[in-house]
Amino acid sequence: MEAIKKDQAAPGLDQGQLVHAIERFNTDYCRALDDGRLHDWVEFFTEDAYYVVSGRENHTANLPVGLVYCEGKGMLKDRALATLETSMFAPRYLRHFVTNTYAEPQNDGTIVAGANYMLTQVLMDQPTATLHQVGCYLDRFVFENGELKLQERRAIYDNLLLNNDLVYPV
Amino acid sequence: MEAIKKDQAAPGLDQGQLVHAIERFNTDYCRALDDGRLHDWVEFFTEDAYYVVSGRENHTANLPVGLVYCEGKGMLKDRALATLETSMFAPRYLRHFVTNTYAEPQNDGTIVAGANYMLTQVLMDQPTATLHQVGCYLDRFVFENGELKLQERRAIYDNLLLNNDLVYPV
Amino acid sequence: MEAIKKDQAAPGLDQGQLVHAIERFNTDYCRALDDGRLHDWVEFFTEDAYYVVSGRENHTANLPVGLVYCEGKGMLKDRALATLETSMFAPRYLRHFVTNTYAEPQNDGTIVAGANYMLTQVLMDQPTATLHQVGCYLDRFVFENGELKLQERRAIYDNLLLNNDLVYPV
Repeated sequence: MEAIKKDQAAPGLDQGQLVHAIERFNTDYCRALDDGRLHDWVEFFTEDAYYVVSGRENHTANLPVGLVYCEGKGMLKDRALATLETSMFAPRYLRHFVTNTYAEPQNDGTIVAGANYMLTQVLMDQPTATLHQVGCYLDRFVFENGELKLQERRAIYDNLLLNNDLVYPV
Repeated sequence: MEAIKKDQAAPGLDQGQLVHAIERFNTDYCRALDDGRLHDWVEFFTEDAYYVVSGRENHTANLPVGLVYCEGKGMLKDRALATLETSMFAPRYLRHFVTNTYAEPQNDGTIVAGANYMLTQVLMDQPTATLHQVGCYLDRFVFENGELKLQERRAIYDNLLLNNDLVYPV
Repeated sequence: MEAIKKDQAAPGLDQGQLVHAIERFNTDYCRALDDGRLHDWVEFFTEDAYYVVSGRENHTANLPVGLVYCEGKGMLKDRALATLETSMFAPRYLRHFVTNTYAEPQNDGTIVAGANYMLTQVLMDQPTATLHQVGCYLDRFVFENGELKLQERRAIYDNLLLNNDLVYPV
C-alpha cells in the first residue's frame, strides 16, 4: 500500500453531501460494470489503487487471498482487458444494487467509507434472476482534482461459494 | 411522444437535492404500487406520459414492444382500472426496492434520470419471498407546478421470462 | 405506549437532511445487527421504546402478536442477551439492505418514518445467499440530546413463514 498523499484533502462537504457524493460515485461505478464498460471502470481508481474481492471468511481471518487481487492501476487494466477480450463465458445480465452507504472523513484527508451490495444475475439459458453475490464494500476514497477516486476497495462477499465460471469485478 | 414543454423548468435545486427529490418521488411511487393504490399511481405521470415495461433484450434491440405499453394518462388509467377491477389473479404481496438513483438535468428543463429496481413477491400459497423482477428505470421527469412528474418511464427488466399471470405496473 | 415527550423537538433540518439522517441511522443500526453487536443495537432505542417484528397478515388485521415483541429497553436488553448467550443456532451471515426511506415530521416533535428492508442469509452448510426476509419498517423517531432514537419500530415482513430456528432482530 502506498503512503497516503497529504494534499488530497476533501473539499468543504458536510456529512450528508459527502455520503451523497459517494452514492453518486457508486451509482456511476455500477453502471459502468453493468453495461460491460470495464475500461471505464478502471478510471474510478487511483494509480496506486488496491482492489480485492474476497470471501468474508478469509477477510475475517485476515487472509489477503481473494478471488480477485489487484495492486495498482496496471493490474486493474489487465483485469479489464482479460475479462473483455480473452475470457470465455456464457452471456448474462448482471446488476448491482448498493445500499447502506456511510462515510467517515479521516484526518489525513482520505475518506473511509462502505456500503452493502447485491449482485443479481440472469443467465441466457435460465429465465429467472438470481441473487449471485451479497456483501459489503470496505473503501478508502481520496479526492483527486476535486473528483472522488478509490484508493482501496475491498469487496467482501458473504457467499461461501461463488459460481466462478466468470470472475467479473464487483 | 409529445414535444417537451419549455416552461417546465426545474427549480433551483443542486445535484444532491435533485437526486434526493427523485428518490423521494420513487419512494412515494413504490408505496402506492405496493399498497395496491393504482389510481394514485396514475397521478405520478404527466397527461402526455409514455410508460413501457419491457425486457432488456427488446430494449437493446430498439423494439418498442413491451409487456405494458401506455401512451398518455388515459391509457394509464385504463391499466389501473383493468388491473384493479377486471383481472383475476392469485393474491400476493409485492415490494419494490429502488437503489442507484441518478439525475441529469437537461437544457430543455427536463431531467433524465434512472435507478435500479428489484421487485419481490410473496404468493399466498408459498411461504418464501422470491426475486420476481430486477431491472432499471429509464426516466424523463418534468416539474409541473413545482412537483416532479414522470413524462417518460421505461422499466427495463433483466429477466428473460416473467411469470405473467399478473401484469402489475412496476 | 408511553406519552410522547413534548421537549424532543427535531432540530432545524429540512426534509432532505432529515431523510439523510434517518438513512444514516438505519445504516449504523444494520451494521450493528450484521456484525452481531446486539448490545449496541439496544442503544438505538429510547427507554420507553416499542419494538415488534410481525407478519404483514397480522399487522393488516391489527393483531399485535408478533415474532418478537418488546415494550421498553429492558425487554430489548433481555432479547439481546438471550440471543447472544443462551440461544443455540447454526452459524450464518446475515445482511440488511434498506431502501425507499421516507420521513414525515409531526407536530408533536416526533418523526413518523419508514423504509423497505431486505435481509439476506448465508448458512454455513449452504453455499448460496438467500432472501431470508423482506418487509418494511414503520417507525417513530425522536431526537434525544440531538441524536435520533427509535421510540417505535415495527418490522413488518411479507413472508408467510420464516425459518424460525433463529429469531434475530431486524
